[in-house]
Amino acid sequence: MKYHDSFNLLGVILATISLIIGHTEGYLNYSNHGDLNIGGLFPLHFYNERGRECGQLREIGSLRRLEAMVFAIENINQNSSVLNNITLGYEIYDTCSYLAESLKQSLNFIPPYRKSITCNCDNPIADHGELPRILGVVGPQRSSSSVQSTILLGLYDIPQVSYLSTSDELSNDERYPYFLRTVPPDSFQVKAMIDILKMYNWKYVAFINSDDTYGKSAQQEFRLTAPLEDICLAFARTISESAEDARFKDIITELEQAQRESHVTSVILFMQVEMARRIFAAATEEGAMRQFIWIGSDGWGNYDMQPVQGYEEAALGKAF
Amino acid sequence: MKYHDSFNLLGVILATISLIIGHTEGYLNYSNHGDLNIGGLFPLHFYNERGRECGQLREIGSLRRLEAMVFAIENINQNSSVLNNITLGYEIYDTCSYLAESLKQSLNFIPPYRKSITCNCDNPIADHGELPRILGVVGPQRSSSSVQSTILLGLYDIPQVSYLSTSDELSNDERYPYFLRTVPPDSFQVKAMIDILKMYNWKYVAFINSDDTYGKSAQQEFRLTAPLEDICLAFARTISESAEDARFKDIITELEQAQRESHVTSVILFMQVEMARRIFAAATEEGAMRQFIWIGSDGWGNYDMQPVQGYEEAALGKAF
Repeated sequence: MKYHDSFNLLGVILATISLIIGHTEGYLNYSNHGDLNIGGLFPLHFYNERGRECGQLREIGSLRRLEAMVFAIENINQNSSVLNNITLGYEIYDTCSYLAESLKQSLNFIPPYRKSITCNCDNPIADHGELPRILGVVGPQRSSSSVQSTILLGLYDIPQVSYLSTSDELSNDERYPYFLRTVPPDSFQVKAMIDILKMYNWKYVAFINSDDTYGKSAQQEFRLTAPLEDICLAFARTISESAEDARFKDIITELEQAQRESHVTSVILFMQVEMARRIFAAATEEGAMRQFIWIGSDGWGNYDMQPVQGYEEAALGKAF
Repeated sequence: MKYHDSFNLLGVILATISLIIGHTEGYLNYSNHGDLNIGGLFPLHFYNERGRECGQLREIGSLRRLEAMVFAIENINQNSSVLNNITLGYEIYDTCSYLAESLKQSLNFIPPYRKSITCNCDNPIADHGELPRILGVVGPQRSSSSVQSTILLGLYDIPQVSYLSTSDELSNDERYPYFLRTVPPDSFQVKAMIDILKMYNWKYVAFINSDDTYGKSAQQEFRLTAPLEDICLAFARTISESAEDARFKDIITELEQAQRESHVTSVILFMQVEMARRIFAAATEEGAMRQFIWIGSDGWGNYDMQPVQGYEEAALGKAF
């Protein structure tokens, strides 16, 4: 454990320095080319929609995942029994957890764009040949970003392996033939949630989800599966990441009304960690303490205390 | 009318010839550059998913729309009171009515790609400078294609004006700031459908939609609006364009069962013309004649007899 911790710390420092260096060249880029190269797409910063640029550092977890990829590649290179006489390289970009930015950074992996980065027609002497071909891409994290990337990368037969995009939409092999993942799809997660509801005999439930592929396809899956188990979806809302705080408060008010009318107690929150925090903040402001049983998806359920810190009273009763 | 008809015929012939010529250069392209240039994205051919290429000519209507764009541009050029001393040009690509192909053809309008088309580093002498910048893009037709294009084009501040993408998803100005359209969004259409249902006092309805942005966001809108008017969505299905015929037949069987159980008579079909045809084919095969009242969206409702030809008995009672 000790070794891993110090590795992580070192990794974070190295990654931060490299990202800063990369940034001065016009884009965030953390790369080291080998004989064969793998791309990476990680959400390292927040996106500032108004300024249309990447903003503050998002969370330490994303940097760790990036470092895990580099660590794995370096380990393979040091182990002569895996790829003998062949060096693996990497080229990693920041998606800023934003759909359009994911597509923009994915352009870095496709042939015409790669050519134009290195190829300067006005000054052919400065031309040092093309960047090496990217064989495949690890990431991105969010399902909606993965949809964008895989449509683009698929045009050039570049496979993509996500470590965290769980949306069922991406299970469509015909539409996304180059998409693969190391995590199970959300239909499994929805099934597990329904098992929890059945176990406690919770018949009237609410479902609040983010306005993206991740949240919307989970709600669709829940609508299909829940009635088969005699569970009634008494309240459903889709909320956008960019919604004002007032909208989050409105949802809590509507939820309280639904509770009075049809005794809804269990609330499934299918969204990212930042949005779940805003739900709990709204519940705290509206005084909805110890009032609901919150059921979390992997978008925030895996983040330990992070989504509820400061709003513990409102979040009491959360289950994952 | 006579003039228009012969113009259309001439246009279709010219477009077909140009498209064939364009095709031999590796991509379908119909262009004529001016001082300022506008891009175009039209679904001219069907897409062959298995072969991953554009296939047969889709419908004469799309060629007409392309010709209307060229006709408008040429009229502007001939009229000195509109843009004096400036020639408008165009560059039009075929999306083959397919999401990934739309994204691929949209790449033709963005700067790095445009550079690499003309810029050949291996042979700098052959270099004749860059293609002119595209100021804006007309199209594409389908909402799901428009979502792809506008995310990409928006990265380079290229506005896009669709003549037929009606999905409400595209009303999100924050997510798609460069998207504009000349048609009203589907929430208006859903509202009109609900007005029809209210007028005839049809309380239990079915909603069948295509598995894309167009169909899915319309269903979502209907789910939100219908209960406010005491209309019950008794049966809802989402069906993929690439689904087997058996799946279409299953839906008709399920629909007949829903009719027996909850007296559903009105069926809203929110999908493209090719899919509506397959629904009517399945209804004919299942013997569901004069049994339902079909309410059509603009995806097939605007196509006159085309969606029902050969299945008139099953489609009897359609309303738009």
